[in-house]
Amino acid sequence: MTLKIGIIGTGVMGGDHARRVATGVSGARVVAVSDPDTGRAERVAGAAGGARVHADGLALVGDAEVEAVLVASPPDTHEAYALACVAAGKPVLCEKPLAPTAGACLRVVEAEAAAGGGRLVQVGFMRRYDEGYLAVKAALDGGLLGRPLLVHCVHRNAGVGPGFTGGTIILDSVVHEIDAARWLLGQEIAAATVLAPRRSALAPEGLDDPQLVLLETGAGVLVDVEIFVSCQYGYDVRCEVVGERGTVSLPEPAEALVRRQGLRARRVSGDWRRRFAGAYRGELQAWVDGAARGGIAGPSAWDGYAATAAAQACMAAVDARRRTTVELAPRPGLYA
Amino acid sequence: MTLKIGIIGTGVMGGDHARRVATGVSGARVVAVSDPDTGRAERVAGAAGGARVHADGLALVGDAEVEAVLVASPPDTHEAYALACVAAGKPVLCEKPLAPTAGACLRVVEAEAAAGGGRLVQVGFMRRYDEGYLAVKAALDGGLLGRPLLVHCVHRNAGVGPGFTGGTIILDSVVHEIDAARWLLGQEIAAATVLAPRRSALAPEGLDDPQLVLLETGAGVLVDVEIFVSCQYGYDVRCEVVGERGTVSLPEPAEALVRRQGLRARRVSGDWRRRFAGAYRGELQAWVDGAARGGIAGPSAWDGYAATAAAQACMAAVDARRRTTVELAPRPGLYA
Amino acid sequence: MTLKIGIIGTGVMGGDHARRVATGVSGARVVAVSDPDTGRAERVAGAAGGARVHADGLALVGDAEVEAVLVASPPDTHEAYALACVAAGKPVLCEKPLAPTAGACLRVVEAEAAAGGGRLVQVGFMRRYDEGYLAVKAALDGGLLGRPLLVHCVHRNAGVGPGFTGGTIILDSVVHEIDAARWLLGQEIAAATVLAPRRSALAPEGLDDPQLVLLETGAGVLVDVEIFVSCQYGYDVRCEVVGERGTVSLPEPAEALVRRQGLRARRVSGDWRRRFAGAYRGELQAWVDGAARGGIAGPSAWDGYAATAAAQACMAAVDARRRTTVELAPRPGLYA
Amino acid sequence: MTLKIGIIGTGVMGGDHARRVATGVSGARVVAVSDPDTGRAERVAGAAGGARVHADGLALVGDAEVEAVLVASPPDTHEAYALACVAAGKPVLCEKPLAPTAGACLRVVEAEAAAGGGRLVQVGFMRRYDEGYLAVKAALDGGLLGRPLLVHCVHRNAGVGPGFTGGTIILDSVVHEIDAARWLLGQEIAAATVLAPRRSALAPEGLDDPQLVLLETGAGVLVDVEIFVSCQYGYDVRCEVVGERGTVSLPEPAEALVRRQGLRARRVSGDWRRRFAGAYRGELQAWVDGAARGGIAGPSAWDGYAATAAAQACMAAVDARRRTTVELAPRPGLYA
Repeated sequence: MTLKIGIIGTGVMGGDHARRVATGVSGARVVAVSDPDTGRAERVAGAAGGARVHADGLALVGDAEVEAVLVASPPDTHEAYALACVAAGKPVLCEKPLAPTAGACLRVVEAEAAAGGGRLVQVGFMRRYDEGYLAVKAALDGGLLGRPLLVHCVHRNAGVGPGFTGGTIILDSVVHEIDAARWLLGQEIAAATVLAPRRSALAPEGLDDPQLVLLETGAGVLVDVEIFVSCQYGYDVRCEVVGERGTVSLPEPAEALVRRQGLRARRVSGDWRRRFAGAYRGELQAWVDGAARGGIAGPSAWDGYAATAAAQACMAAVDARRRTTVELAPRPGLYA
Repeated sequence: MTLKIGIIGTGVMGGDHARRVATGVSGARVVAVSDPDTGRAERVAGAAGGARVHADGLALVGDAEVEAVLVASPPDTHEAYALACVAAGKPVLCEKPLAPTAGACLRVVEAEAAAGGGRLVQVGFMRRYDEGYLAVKAALDGGLLGRPLLVHCVHRNAGVGPGFTGGTIILDSVVHEIDAARWLLGQEIAAATVLAPRRSALAPEGLDDPQLVLLETGAGVLVDVEIFVSCQYGYDVRCEVVGERGTVSLPEPAEALVRRQGLRARRVSGDWRRRFAGAYRGELQAWVDGAARGGIAGPSAWDGYAATAAAQACMAAVDARRRTTVELAPRPGLYA
Repeated sequence: MTLKIGIIGTGVMGGDHARRVATGVSGARVVAVSDPDTGRAERVAGAAGGARVHADGLALVGDAEVEAVLVASPPDTHEAYALACVAAGKPVLCEKPLAPTAGACLRVVEAEAAAGGGRLVQVGFMRRYDEGYLAVKAALDGGLLGRPLLVHCVHRNAGVGPGFTGGTIILDSVVHEIDAARWLLGQEIAAATVLAPRRSALAPEGLDDPQLVLLETGAGVLVDVEIFVSCQYGYDVRCEVVGERGTVSLPEPAEALVRRQGLRARRVSGDWRRRFAGAYRGELQAWVDGAARGGIAGPSAWDGYAATAAAQACMAAVDARRRTTVELAPRPGLYA
Repeated sequence: MTLKIGIIGTGVMGGDHARRVATGVSGARVVAVSDPDTGRAERVAGAAGGARVHADGLALVGDAEVEAVLVASPPDTHEAYALACVAAGKPVLCEKPLAPTAGACLRVVEAEAAAGGGRLVQVGFMRRYDEGYLAVKAALDGGLLGRPLLVHCVHRNAGVGPGFTGGTIILDSVVHEIDAARWLLGQEIAAATVLAPRRSALAPEGLDDPQLVLLETGAGVLVDVEIFVSCQYGYDVRCEVVGERGTVSLPEPAEALVRRQGLRARRVSGDWRRRFAGAYRGELQAWVDGAARGGIAGPSAWDGYAATAAAQACMAAVDARRRTTVELAPRPGLYA
């Protein structure tokens, strides 16, 4: 009755997931972890109450006690772990992006579809579990706003760590808006354009920051995304969908209102972990419940593939300085 | 490693708690339930994956497999169950009010203090786990607002079921504000006055609704509470603490903003279950973690006693139509 | 076609009114001023483009060129000027309070009613011209909220000048809420109670600040007013009217939202002049238009009388430490 | 001391201006009007208290009593009237756009500069007088937000009348955002791109609506403008400027908050007249004061020229379906 989970990758995301399993999710416990940094792995294993430590992620997938796998290792390792899980018939929750290239994602899609065992892969697009995003989707699906025409998005981070590149901005950050737009609209991204205003003097060297990403869906909805990863003031995510008869906006997080010294002010989240704490918990519980029930229903490998394909188009659009189209493989029936 | 819980009372609150154990709390499962309505008990037991059904709450407390007890039966039964849990040395989460009279509450306090086994009783004042209330408390404790002087509270329900009386309004509804004020201020309620404006024509027959409850703390902070249980439009809880240098207000829940037909509008929660869903989850997780660790730290039996004593003063103030003081027994060291 | 105005009292309020006549009101100009401080009077006269300076307010009323009089001198001088204007048949805009005692106000009421020339006196309850208050009134009068039952008011000043007393707090500050409640509800105040929490350590010496004023209307509506004249953080006025089917709240002023350094913040007005600038302009234009048309329609001498009578009841309630009733003289037909 | 104004064009805008002169502006009155629709002209003249009616705008400019002219006739007539005013040395407030083509605007600029009498022309970009926009500008100029990088704008109308074309959308509506961006940033627009999502089924036939207009300033700030003239739900204008250290957003208008039937809702303005009533008054008062003082200081003929030039680039970008640059003539010293 308790799902036995293995976690591959015990960095920030993996460690957070382990903590959530222990403190906010029903029906699961962590029995194994792996990480090239074994010290880190052992600390997370200890905090989880004595999980086994594997030196290697594939060995963890092969661990007979492990019933389901949570992949939080670097993106370029995701494909191999996801494929191993599919081969082993074990449910897997893979952090976004599913893989850094559309080709790698597609191999996971094809493997899962070919395996014939139904859906095993869930991709970590946790915003789909945020109550605000769910309310936006409910408003759209309720039909009172008419057909959606435009989506305005803002995605800001106070700052980013070293090693963050233009590609990281797209694959790590904008990929959330790509998935959110696909999910909210029920449409695929068909083309992308990226515009850069003058750089912030406070942006990390070599980074064009902020940028304005313009996505077009097949049905002609236009999605604009301001991405700004060194905005200084905090973590800020906004989204407004404009329909023919009205609009719906993601709520700003509920924060206490302090009136003091001539201001009425609310705190802005410092990072995404606080902002989306509820979404991460909901994502994990849904995956645990699905794995226990034998039916994963969250963001699929196909969603992971389509999002990476759109992200790659954005990166190509940056390089080519012009509009770039997205070409998707046929969608297997598994993801209909 | 998994706490085995028994639930006494499988009505709305008990059923919700059972569902939360199964779907949003780590480290616990429901192994037994009891309810005079055995059909209801069996449905909750079944949904919990096959818990045992006891015809009697005391038998449930005595069930050797039950490690901790959740009491969600009618208030006048709480005392007996709480005392039984204390006698059995089992942690108990008792829904508010701890008991309907200060005397009954005090017996629980004294029994727990006398037992010498540390704290076992947590009272279901879940607002202390609401992120908004926590932020209000953090702002106060941060010291930037100066000493608190006034607290303004609003507590509105769209409507109430049959059988709701003036006493229910105080014991069931205002008791939340009483506890919140005590907790936010770190002060006891010393006196109460209740004023009634003209009745709403939509209030249930025989009920003075709305009312304005005025609480005074020993240190002279004045707390006003509008209680209105038939406000028609939804469930609405507000709180502003006024300090010498500024104020802090409970945030309204984050709801999507819909612009449509000449309005920009957000939904108001229909009831307390949706409004405080996160708080209930946090309360339960904290209690499970405390029980597993052997140290209950949430709202105490003393809190339950002091809140009921203040509520009784409010009821006396209604009857006498004047200010009524609250007399508390000495506080045992256990609750220092 | 241009109304020739005389201003008695060229302090803050009188100076502001003179400036508004010159820079934001159609159809009027200032032709005469008076003030015991003749230097101040001459500066205002000069700024108004060369108005005549009278050493004495009654002389100003008697100035044949002066067609209408604006009284902004200290409250205890209002009665004499208002009576002189009534006797002279000249429209007068008298700052609030109309007079410091109900008796003085009543003499103005009776003089105006006896004169038989229709309404000449408008009292400076400028909030009735604030767009926010007008929207609150429109919502109430629209009927969708049901009968009003409660009104919650907050009235805070950052701080007050020297010489501010407990009586000033009522007559100068709370009188605005008294008038607003009367106007919004269309009901007279019948009783008042005043409660004091512990004092703010930052309140001026000798001043009980903040206080909670409780007003009851004849029909049983309960109005609570937090008055806090040394709240430090700014000027803040709030009002929510609770009806049987819903509530309406005064909007907070539209201020730009700045996101910076971990906060999203809006400015709070420093004082009432900025907060109610639009209301003062609207008040003055309405009075000028009414005077030009021969029909004053704003807050009447009766409103001034009833507000001062309620304010006096509040002051008596402070002294007596208990609920005090308000007795009003019969209302002359002129104010039906 | 009272400025004698003539109004050319007595449609909606001219009629509103006439009413404002009579009811909310100091120091001016309307002495003459003209309109091809003489019935309409006579009604406005009558309401203004007996102004003279000229059949022809040029005759009105030549009327010796007319000291200053307000041009509210169709855009293609503006140039002739503005030139006549400049030739006559009379201050003129010309509704936006200054003229429908950059060439026509430039002739006004050159005439005014050549006349050597200082600035006479003010263009009706009233948003510069809106308190919200002024606060946005103050925040930017205060320097705490760092250099601006991006501006996000929304401009929505519930619907538009017959005869509205794609060109009207740009010249009549987007021109406001063009001027606001130029003014807020202190930079000229250098290039424009226009993108169209799928059309709203509720848009007037033949109109691409909504559209996303992308403006680039010479210094590299990127301004995106959603223009949607048939959004159904109301008139809605928003603006957020993103700086290196923070952002500032235009406040939404202060509207009463009504809680009712499960919603907390605020009204959205139905049209621009209500939304910008204060701005129109401020604009007119500033122009009257400037004219009386002999120094017009509001939006200049150069602003009108630069805005129309940018608007023309937008229209060319729509036709060519690609980015189009803006070429401006040298700026005369008069507008330095």
